[in-house]
Amino acid sequence: MSMAPASVGRQVRIVGTGLIGASLGIALSRSGFQVSLEDPSPTAVALARDLGAGVLAADTAAVPDVVVVAAPPDVVADVVAVELSRWPDAVVTDAASVKGAVLTALQDRGADLSRYVGSHPMAGREKSGAMAAQGDLFEGRSWVVAPGPQASPGAIDMVRKVAEAAGSVVLIMTPDEHDAAVAAVSHVPQIAASLVASRLRDLPPGAVALSGQGVRDVTRIAASDPGMWTQILAGNAPAVRGVLESLAKELDGVLVALRLLESDPGVGSVGARAVLARAVADGNAGHALIPGKHGAPPTTYATVIVVVPDEPGALGRLLHDVGEAGVNMEDLHLEHEIGQSFGLAELSVLPAAVQPLIAALSSLGWPVHE
Amino acid sequence: MSMAPASVGRQVRIVGTGLIGASLGIALSRSGFQVSLEDPSPTAVALARDLGAGVLAADTAAVPDVVVVAAPPDVVADVVAVELSRWPDAVVTDAASVKGAVLTALQDRGADLSRYVGSHPMAGREKSGAMAAQGDLFEGRSWVVAPGPQASPGAIDMVRKVAEAAGSVVLIMTPDEHDAAVAAVSHVPQIAASLVASRLRDLPPGAVALSGQGVRDVTRIAASDPGMWTQILAGNAPAVRGVLESLAKELDGVLVALRLLESDPGVGSVGARAVLARAVADGNAGHALIPGKHGAPPTTYATVIVVVPDEPGALGRLLHDVGEAGVNMEDLHLEHEIGQSFGLAELSVLPAAVQPLIAALSSLGWPVHE
Repeated sequence: MSMAPASVGRQVRIVGTGLIGASLGIALSRSGFQVSLEDPSPTAVALARDLGAGVLAADTAAVPDVVVVAAPPDVVADVVAVELSRWPDAVVTDAASVKGAVLTALQDRGADLSRYVGSHPMAGREKSGAMAAQGDLFEGRSWVVAPGPQASPGAIDMVRKVAEAAGSVVLIMTPDEHDAAVAAVSHVPQIAASLVASRLRDLPPGAVALSGQGVRDVTRIAASDPGMWTQILAGNAPAVRGVLESLAKELDGVLVALRLLESDPGVGSVGARAVLARAVADGNAGHALIPGKHGAPPTTYATVIVVVPDEPGALGRLLHDVGEAGVNMEDLHLEHEIGQSFGLAELSVLPAAVQPLIAALSSLGWPVHE
Repeated sequence: MSMAPASVGRQVRIVGTGLIGASLGIALSRSGFQVSLEDPSPTAVALARDLGAGVLAADTAAVPDVVVVAAPPDVVADVVAVELSRWPDAVVTDAASVKGAVLTALQDRGADLSRYVGSHPMAGREKSGAMAAQGDLFEGRSWVVAPGPQASPGAIDMVRKVAEAAGSVVLIMTPDEHDAAVAAVSHVPQIAASLVASRLRDLPPGAVALSGQGVRDVTRIAASDPGMWTQILAGNAPAVRGVLESLAKELDGVLVALRLLESDPGVGSVGARAVLARAVADGNAGHALIPGKHGAPPTTYATVIVVVPDEPGALGRLLHDVGEAGVNMEDLHLEHEIGQSFGLAELSVLPAAVQPLIAALSSLGWPVHE
């Protein structure tokens, strides 16, 4: 966190002191901003104050340079419009997870769009409310700043500096680009995970025991809260619909290919096999675009598999030994076995580290497989 | 691994000495079986012999009690038919990943189906060939034994004992149940992961940077080999088509709901929201069916998040400390942050262990979030 430069407005008003608003208040206060807090709930706003998020708006006469609206999605546009009218010299931003709908609603209201810059901090917790607030919630997280075409450069810059002061990495996009991006990287994966998990209900008892690491990974987020996700998906319906239609179209092609192979499993249905191969190859290409650690360009990692006894401390000893070997892991997966008293740890490391790691672990008695 | 009981046929013939055949030979030889090896490639079969998988079939006059066909999928039925004819007293099994198609092909050939019991060891590696063989490849893995209706109880029992001698946990299913199960727990998740990853190609440069842990998990297997998966999907086309049609139907419902919400975002489209909530809730129910560690009934785990410096040994120290606290982890995920020199370790533990773990780690100076 850097101190707010003198050239940046230091008076920040936060409307809505739930998890995001209260956490932001704590972070900005620590960075030297003067923060005032407002919330329909007197209890919530007092709690945020007590946590160090700022002073009550009722207790200060300060005029804000920046207003951050961290209200529930269904009232964001209304609250932003009110704040733009009330503070005619302030820049107003919001933290809603959908950006196009808010901008359209403000346009319909005839709001001053030169001073509105929508944004979306990509941070959150499973818990909500000021009680869960943390000053480091935004540390190292992406924060999308999504100005509409009428937003002034000065307003954009001011919102960017607030996000950076909270510790975030700022990404500038148009509202439509943002909505399409979160549809593709978050909302559609959620739907896909749910639909795949849903199919397991059709299996006879016991057959789900064949589940391996693949389906576990694909369906991990299928455990998410239906109520929350209904709000999110409904809020970004146009962008989610667009990405999902593209997925459904390719799925139809895969189904046509499978039906061809079913009626003619022979070599005759060569075109059908090409459709399947293309679907998996295009998935390879898409997967390769996901950035690696620290936003670095994607890298190919090699895997080393180690048999770990299923007892407290065993995995710790292993990773201690990995550290002693001077090897840095990119990722670690634990694979659970049926009816066995051991697990398999799958360590992803740079290809050059594979042989030294195997040598080091083997010499310490770990059963290692490349 | 247990020694082969005297009552079980101890003469096993393995046809096909790639990864599966050679690994099985090593495992069964260690368990006291007499194994003979056959492969179209003299090099492959000699290599398997040198690895301890058994003797060359050419070097023994032994008559097999059990024949295991571990040949490539497209020749399995032919090879099984030949082995059934050649050894009129032997039980024949195979290790192909699809079971219905093999049984149908054998029926068409008029083979003796009382002595054929299809099976599918749920084991494999990213590498192939005898060179990658491991005697413990089947340890703790599921091995589906999928007899057709004409298979004799004695034949089924013999195949079961071979699988158990290799260290596997046997699951008995019909061929159709097996094919539907692998379609749902393996083949359809692969297609879904590929289709979701594929969508990332449509994003503008930089937008993929918004990817979080969710899309990383969902698309991890999208990095799989297109050639291999084309074979697998084509081989199980009827069952994959069935599960995928069910998924496509629900997807269509989601799309209809999204279009409704797009044209009428207001409260009017209550039915549309119910469709979305139902899709996510059904995914919850399906996800909950996946067995936990060691095939135990599914359990809900709680998550503890710890900030870990990005340096060799740090994660090892953390897990050492977790072990010292007497807490056994169910799972561990590393979350990589953009542009930061630390990572977040997400530890899944039993709910009752959360508070003791937080207390123990906090006292050792780890920054912990629930």
